[in-house]
Amino acid sequence: MSGVVVLRTPESVERTVSSWRRMGHTVALVPTMGALHEGHISLVSIARKRCKRVIVSIFVNPAQFAPGEDFMEYPRSFEDDRAKLEESGAHAVFVPDEHMIYPMGFSTTVEVSGITDSLCGRFRPGHFNGVSTVCAVLFGMVKPDVVVFGRKDAQQLAVIRRMVRDLWMGLEVVSGPTLREADGLAMSSRNRYLRDEERRQATALYRGLMRSAQFAAEGERNAERLIARAMETIESSPLLTVQYLELVDPFSLKPLKRLKAKGLLAVAAHVGKTRLIDNVMIGPSGAVEED
Amino acid sequence: MSGVVVLRTPESVERTVSSWRRMGHTVALVPTMGALHEGHISLVSIARKRCKRVIVSIFVNPAQFAPGEDFMEYPRSFEDDRAKLEESGAHAVFVPDEHMIYPMGFSTTVEVSGITDSLCGRFRPGHFNGVSTVCAVLFGMVKPDVVVFGRKDAQQLAVIRRMVRDLWMGLEVVSGPTLREADGLAMSSRNRYLRDEERRQATALYRGLMRSAQFAAEGERNAERLIARAMETIESSPLLTVQYLELVDPFSLKPLKRLKAKGLLAVAAHVGKTRLIDNVMIGPSGAVEED
Repeated sequence: MSGVVVLRTPESVERTVSSWRRMGHTVALVPTMGALHEGHISLVSIARKRCKRVIVSIFVNPAQFAPGEDFMEYPRSFEDDRAKLEESGAHAVFVPDEHMIYPMGFSTTVEVSGITDSLCGRFRPGHFNGVSTVCAVLFGMVKPDVVVFGRKDAQQLAVIRRMVRDLWMGLEVVSGPTLREADGLAMSSRNRYLRDEERRQATALYRGLMRSAQFAAEGERNAERLIARAMETIESSPLLTVQYLELVDPFSLKPLKRLKAKGLLAVAAHVGKTRLIDNVMIGPSGAVEED
Repeated sequence: MSGVVVLRTPESVERTVSSWRRMGHTVALVPTMGALHEGHISLVSIARKRCKRVIVSIFVNPAQFAPGEDFMEYPRSFEDDRAKLEESGAHAVFVPDEHMIYPMGFSTTVEVSGITDSLCGRFRPGHFNGVSTVCAVLFGMVKPDVVVFGRKDAQQLAVIRRMVRDLWMGLEVVSGPTLREADGLAMSSRNRYLRDEERRQATALYRGLMRSAQFAAEGERNAERLIARAMETIESSPLLTVQYLELVDPFSLKPLKRLKAKGLLAVAAHVGKTRLIDNVMIGPSGAVEED
């Protein structure tokens, strides 16, 4: 298998997508920041099941890095990404330069409020404005039928869903499950930052979340106690510093006091200099997988 | 001539526009707040020349009224508007309730920065966010090929152009000239607020702008002096209180020091409680009409 077309300009994207449209093909977009891992590739597979043509974008979006974050260090590995995409079944990859997304005079911000007040939104000023704006630009350029996002970035997914609905963007937002390493660590482009001992201790994130899920399955409904249970495990790993650990409503992302139907248990922690996030959806009988 | 279809829901808009699309028709949208006058009707005529089907929206958008402004008093005259549209050649009018534009949970704001720092943007906090957001929603619902706006709201036009370009909305923004009463007063839904003497003195706005244009034609290039010439006329009308009177670059809307190619001379003034705006484009040989 081979033949992923590399597109470098909005004009070439429009030409390519138009030619697909003329053939009657539906189009799915998988937006990424590159440094692709199996999680990304699984999103491409989902996209392929939904649409005849799949375009992956790779753009390390400066607007979604808050001040002091790892924009400069963020891994860029295009040749490796391209090789992975060749095998993924994607049809095209869009790799714009910054000035193609944000040309001279660019002045527009799309902001989703409310659901960005909790979780990462509290700690990454401007991050979600960067995400929603770049996605609005990419969706406008590609005009896909379907866009695919991973559920590891749960708040990002909620933001995109809200924006797409509010602005009648006329596309379907599809999500894919969090892929994990054998020891449970959520796959992330940032995992490659981790040194050996950090990598070992990072597994405490998912173990903590799953202990809380288990606690829920045993009948615990009190959010504070559910959170404390996860925290216990995570904090027993000395290299982890928790930024937040919250149980929130899956739609409003507002903190829950008690677990009723479903709750999103989400964590962000620093492992050395590296910031990792993870989450599980939990219900009265423990962890539940979304569709 | 008759038969403007009245649409009250986004779903009926989508159905109507889809049926037009199936017939191969292009679609133009003319967004308004109702209280239609000849200026609006001229925009419908422009829309008809560009597209096979024209939809006019009427929505008094609460989000674009700053605190203390005339949202509650803003004239609403649907039966009159509808009668005017019957004769205008519009094919449909979309009259949504507020909760159809901003349903429960609506959380998205589209903000255009920079060009909103001057002119009205300085005095109407949140106004242009309200304008760009409601237009993004309406454009998403209707998905027109062309949208038509009047040049009386020059900054609004610039904001919409910027948003459409930045977010690749894939539609063409067309503008129409400011229509004026016989004595030069720019047509506005707010003119009906004016009492007789206010109405008489309001003509000083356009007379002032045109005196400045004449001054430019005589060779004056200094922005301060060009502005002062207009101000002289306007301030000689005691019922007028100028909020701003600026000569700005037509694209960036940044204040000009000297008139070179073209400048937008724009004014806002209170006439009693009523706030009016007007503008003329001026060049080295005086007032110039845009296309």
